[in-house]
Amino acid sequence: MPDNARAGDLTAVNVQARHMLEVETSGPGFTDLTREIDGWLASSGAGEGIVTLFVMHTSASLTIQENADPDVLRDLGDALERIAPYDQSYRHGIEGPDDMPAHIKSMVTSTSLSIPVERGRLVLGTWQGVYLIEHRARPHRRRIAVHFMGSSA
Amino acid sequence: MPDNARAGDLTAVNVQARHMLEVETSGPGFTDLTREIDGWLASSGAGEGIVTLFVMHTSASLTIQENADPDVLRDLGDALERIAPYDQSYRHGIEGPDDMPAHIKSMVTSTSLSIPVERGRLVLGTWQGVYLIEHRARPHRRRIAVHFMGSSA
Amino acid sequence: MPDNARAGDLTAVNVQARHMLEVETSGPGFTDLTREIDGWLASSGAGEGIVTLFVMHTSASLTIQENADPDVLRDLGDALERIAPYDQSYRHGIEGPDDMPAHIKSMVTSTSLSIPVERGRLVLGTWQGVYLIEHRARPHRRRIAVHFMGSSA
Repeated sequence: MPDNARAGDLTAVNVQARHMLEVETSGPGFTDLTREIDGWLASSGAGEGIVTLFVMHTSASLTIQENADPDVLRDLGDALERIAPYDQSYRHGIEGPDDMPAHIKSMVTSTSLSIPVERGRLVLGTWQGVYLIEHRARPHRRRIAVHFMGSSA
Repeated sequence: MPDNARAGDLTAVNVQARHMLEVETSGPGFTDLTREIDGWLASSGAGEGIVTLFVMHTSASLTIQENADPDVLRDLGDALERIAPYDQSYRHGIEGPDDMPAHIKSMVTSTSLSIPVERGRLVLGTWQGVYLIEHRARPHRRRIAVHFMGSSA
Repeated sequence: MPDNARAGDLTAVNVQARHMLEVETSGPGFTDLTREIDGWLASSGAGEGIVTLFVMHTSASLTIQENADPDVLRDLGDALERIAPYDQSYRHGIEGPDDMPAHIKSMVTSTSLSIPVERGRLVLGTWQGVYLIEHRARPHRRRIAVHFMGSSA
């Protein structure tokens, strides 16, 4: 929005851009995507609007979480394991004992996220980072569709 | 986006369309909405953009999940029952023992989803389907507001 | 959309507006944001489109839930405590025993929500309200970024 726009003023929407983010995971855990998304926004000429993130998989997902203490991410991983234990009895086991828990963890976290953008950057709280969560036991190549809609810079 | 647009290029946004999807459920379980949403997008003349899905209820919700092995969906239903058991003691019981678990299951899954659209189709991974989850014990008629914003075809 | 537009018709998108909603919470529980968001939409001159809500914190989050019986909200709070108990052993404890449970509760609910708007009002089911959930034990001032994109009234 122009510098002299008051919050709440209606300003123009006219552009969109898209990008496929590829991430190599190294097994269960959290990968911070914040810098990569901000970098793409800057290179795209995005101004004000909304970024939509969408994970193209059902055994990896998204969350916005604290980026300060890495122990928070480890505790979150443990919490997901309590919700979806490996040693539960599942009907679907053909892809390994980590597969069905991965689907459950995806279901209770986020496949899509919508985040405001101002002056070409994600509008995040001080301690917020955007994370991909890998739920499978082995490394995977994951794709996240990134889409911006709003005004140009 | 035009065929010659590079990913990341800014292209036009100028249209929106909306639709109210109605689904008859037959009790707890998953209903695949993917084809119906793609069909509506095609008939609307949608091009590139974002589809937003919004469930108009608090005892049914949305998820993106694997569309290959139906056992995945059954295991997901079991996982939701472990998170929100029928036999837990709840304050709110007037609408039946399945009602409060239904609200909890809605809270831990998704009321809204945002999905990228390219060339008038949902951008989904190979194994992804868009599902409505019925959480109540009896059949219900459910409404899902569908909204597209982006460019025309 | 104009009164004579059929659902599914493509209509114009041309404006966006943003607002930072500030909420004082009084400890764990649910704050209904519905009226405040509708009031802002009306004052902004929003017509048809999508509202995106984004919580700027990792220990508070959003949900769409039943607005009729307050016991539903209390039962939802209890359900979140069962998912993320205070007396679990966590690595991250420096900010108090309620902090790590708050992050887990945020992860399994919503940091962002996308809600359709028609004639300048949220499109919600009869029993739906939009709630901020405070997960920390003490009162906090919480910020929710509100963004509208679509057409003007």
